Amino acid sequence: MSSQQYSGKAIVSHGPHKQGKWRIEDITLRPIAETELVIEVIASGICHTDIHFGNQEAGNVGVFYPRVLGHEGAGYVKAVGSKVTVAQPGDPVLLSFASCSKCHSCNTGHPAYCTDFNDINFFGGNDFVLSSSVSSDASDVKHDIGGRFFGQSSFANVTIANERSVVNVKGLIKDKEELKLFAPLGCGIQTGSGTIATVAGATEKDAVAVLGLGGVGLSAIMAARLLKCKIIIGIDRVDGRLELAKSLGATHTINSSTLPSGKSLGDAVREASDGIGPSISIDTTGVAALTRQAVDFTRNQGKIIQVGTAPIEATLDIPLFMFMITGKQFMGAIEGDSQPTKFVPQMIKWYQEGKLPVNKLVKYFKAEDLAKAIEEMHTGETVKPIIVW
Amino acid sequence: MSSQQYSGKAIVSHGPHKQGKWRIEDITLRPIAETELVIEVIASGICHTDIHFGNQEAGNVGVFYPRVLGHEGAGYVKAVGSKVTVAQPGDPVLLSFASCSKCHSCNTGHPAYCTDFNDINFFGGNDFVLSSSVSSDASDVKHDIGGRFFGQSSFANVTIANERSVVNVKGLIKDKEELKLFAPLGCGIQTGSGTIATVAGATEKDAVAVLGLGGVGLSAIMAARLLKCKIIIGIDRVDGRLELAKSLGATHTINSSTLPSGKSLGDAVREASDGIGPSISIDTTGVAALTRQAVDFTRNQGKIIQVGTAPIEATLDIPLFMFMITGKQFMGAIEGDSQPTKFVPQMIKWYQEGKLPVNKLVKYFKAEDLAKAIEEMHTGETVKPIIVW
Repeated sequence: MSSQQYSGKAIVSHGPHKQGKWRIEDITLRPIAETELVIEVIASGICHTDIHFGNQEAGNVGVFYPRVLGHEGAGYVKAVGSKVTVAQPGDPVLLSFASCSKCHSCNTGHPAYCTDFNDINFFGGNDFVLSSSVSSDASDVKHDIGGRFFGQSSFANVTIANERSVVNVKGLIKDKEELKLFAPLGCGIQTGSGTIATVAGATEKDAVAVLGLGGVGLSAIMAARLLKCKIIIGIDRVDGRLELAKSLGATHTINSSTLPSGKSLGDAVREASDGIGPSISIDTTGVAALTRQAVDFTRNQGKIIQVGTAPIEATLDIPLFMFMITGKQFMGAIEGDSQPTKFVPQMIKWYQEGKLPVNKLVKYFKAEDLAKAIEEMHTGETVKPIIVW
Repeated sequence: MSSQQYSGKAIVSHGPHKQGKWRIEDITLRPIAETELVIEVIASGICHTDIHFGNQEAGNVGVFYPRVLGHEGAGYVKAVGSKVTVAQPGDPVLLSFASCSKCHSCNTGHPAYCTDFNDINFFGGNDFVLSSSVSSDASDVKHDIGGRFFGQSSFANVTIANERSVVNVKGLIKDKEELKLFAPLGCGIQTGSGTIATVAGATEKDAVAVLGLGGVGLSAIMAARLLKCKIIIGIDRVDGRLELAKSLGATHTINSSTLPSGKSLGDAVREASDGIGPSISIDTTGVAALTRQAVDFTRNQGKIIQVGTAPIEATLDIPLFMFMITGKQFMGAIEGDSQPTKFVPQMIKWYQEGKLPVNKLVKYFKAEDLAKAIEEMHTGETVKPIIVW
C-alpha cells in the first residue's frame, strides 16, 4: 500500500446547495484501507440523489455536513490497498454503488439489495480534510469531511473508492472521451436500463410506460427499444424530453400537463396500449400520486415498478381486493438490480453497438459551473449533466 | 339440446345466513343455453367466499337475493348445450370459476384474471325457480332465483354450469368417492397450491410463510412441501390447524395469538427463516394489518402475495422508499392463476401420488347440516366442509 498523501480539489458541501454552501476546495485524502483504491476522477455525473442528500438541513436521515457527494464517477486508479484485486494503478474505472459482499443479497448476486445498503452508501465516515489544515506531520491530521458516498464521493478530482464500487473497464473502452461519457453508467443509466432488462425482464411482447423522462426514465426508454418492446410510452411535462424520448425509441409520448379536458392520464396511457394498459409501468418520479395512477392503468397481471426516490415518509395506498382480482404486481427496485461488474460492461457493449446512445443524454460542465449544471437539470434543459475536471 | 325440464333441491339464500335465511327448497332450472350444461351435483365444498356473498345485506357489491351460492361443485353431466364440447352426458366433472374466453387475460392463458371476472362470477342472472311455482306451461315460468355463482351455483343437487367452469375428469378419477373428495379442487385447493406453484414459482431454495391455515393456507403448505421448499412456516391462531399444518409439511408453526411478551410476529417469522425472513409470504386472511406485517418481515426481494379476500374498501399502505431499496414485490393473486382444465388434473395426479393429501382437510356434511358445517368452518374445527346430497 502506498503511504503517499493524495491531494486535489473537491466540491465540498458545507450545507444545503440552495443556501450556496457547496464550495470547491483543496483537499487531502486520508490513507486508504486494504480494500480501497485512490482514484483520479476525470468526470462525475450529477444525479437527483446528490441533490436529495445535499440540499436538506443536517440531521434529516442521511444528511450531514461537511461532506463530498457524487456517485457517478469515472477515472483512473492511482493507488490500491493491499487486498485489492479488482484493478491496478493506471486502469480506467467506472464507479458504482458499494455493498457489503457478505449478506444474503450480496451472496446471491443482488448487491443492490445489500442489507447494509443505506449504511454503506449514505452514512459513510470522514475521508477528506482541507489541504490547508494538513500539518507537516500527516499522522496528526483529523479527517473531518465526509466521504464514501456510494463508496466513492466522486465530486472530487481525487477520491477514495471502496473496491466494491469499482468496475475495471480496461480493454473495454476506446479512449478517455468514452470514459468521461460513461461516468453515469454506474447509477442513472444502469437504474433505468437495468429496471427494464433485469427487474422487469421485458421482451418484445411487452407494452412499457415510463413516468418521468430524466436520465433514469430515458435510459428505460432506450432499454425498452433495444429489447424490442412493442409499445413504449414516455410520460413527462417537458416537451423537449418527450421529443428526446421519441428519438430514443418511444412509440408514444404523453405530456401529462397538457391533457385535453376530461381525459385522464390513465385514459391516454390505455389508448396508447391497445386499450388494456401497459404490462410494465415504471415510475421514476417518486411522486406517490403518479405511482397510484400507474397502479390503476397497468393491465391485469402487469408490473408497476417504483424506481424514483420518494420521500422517506411517503406511502402508496393499494386497494387490496382490486389488486387481488387483477393479479397486479407492485415492485420496488434500486440500481436496476444490477451487478455493476457485469452490467456496466453490457451497457458499454450496447453503446458501442449503437443501441444505448447515452451521448444523447449528457452535457459536460466544468466543476466551477456546477450550479448551472444543477439548474439545467432541474428545468429539464439538460438530462444528465457531467462534471469534468 | 335437451328440452327436458330439470328439477331438484337447492340451498336458496333469501337473505344473510346469519339471519337464518338460507333454506333447502325444491327448484326447477331454466332451459340451458348453447354453451351451458346441466350438472347433477353430488358434492360442493364450502368456501369463505360463499359466506362473504351470502351474509351481507342486499345492495352491497355483488350481494343480492334470492340466489344459489356454492362454487366448489363435483358431479355428473346430465345434459349439454348444442355448442358444448368439453363433456358429454354421464361424464364426471369438477367445477371451477368461469371466464369470458375473449379478453387479453383469457387469450394468454390466465382466465383467473379475466377482465369480466366479477360480472361473470359474482353478478350472474337468474337460473332457478321454486318448483312449486312451475305451471303446466313451462314457457310462462319467470326464473327469479340467481344462479351462475362462479358459473355453477353448486349448492344444489342439479344446476346449470357455464362450460368454462367445467373440468372433465373422465378417466382421471377412481370412483364416485374420489369425485366427492375432489369437489374443492376447483377453488380452495387450487388457490392455495396454485399460488405456491404457479404464482410464486416456489422452489427448494424458498422459505415460505403462510398466514392463515384454512383450506387455502393448508393447500399452500402442501404445495410448498411437494415442491420441497426448504422452510415452510404456518401461522394461525388455532392450535389444531397448526398441528395439521405440521402433519402436512410445515417445518415451523407460529400461534400468532400466544406470542411471548415482547416478541412480534415478525421476530418469530424471521427467527424461523435464517434471520432474514421468508422469500415468499402468502396472506390468506384478507386482514390488511397482517399483510402489512408480512410486507415488513419478508426478506429483500421477497414476494408478498395477497390471496385472502379483503373488504372492498381495504387498502394496504406500502412505504415507498423502504420498498424501493429492498426490492420487495407485492402481488395480488386469485385462484392461483390456474387454468382449471390443466391444473385440476395436475392436483388429482399429486393426490394420487400421495403428495396432496386433501383428504386430511375435508369433512362431509349433509345439505341439511349446512349451518353446522359453516359453524365448524368458522371455529376452525373443520377446515374444508363439503356438502353432499
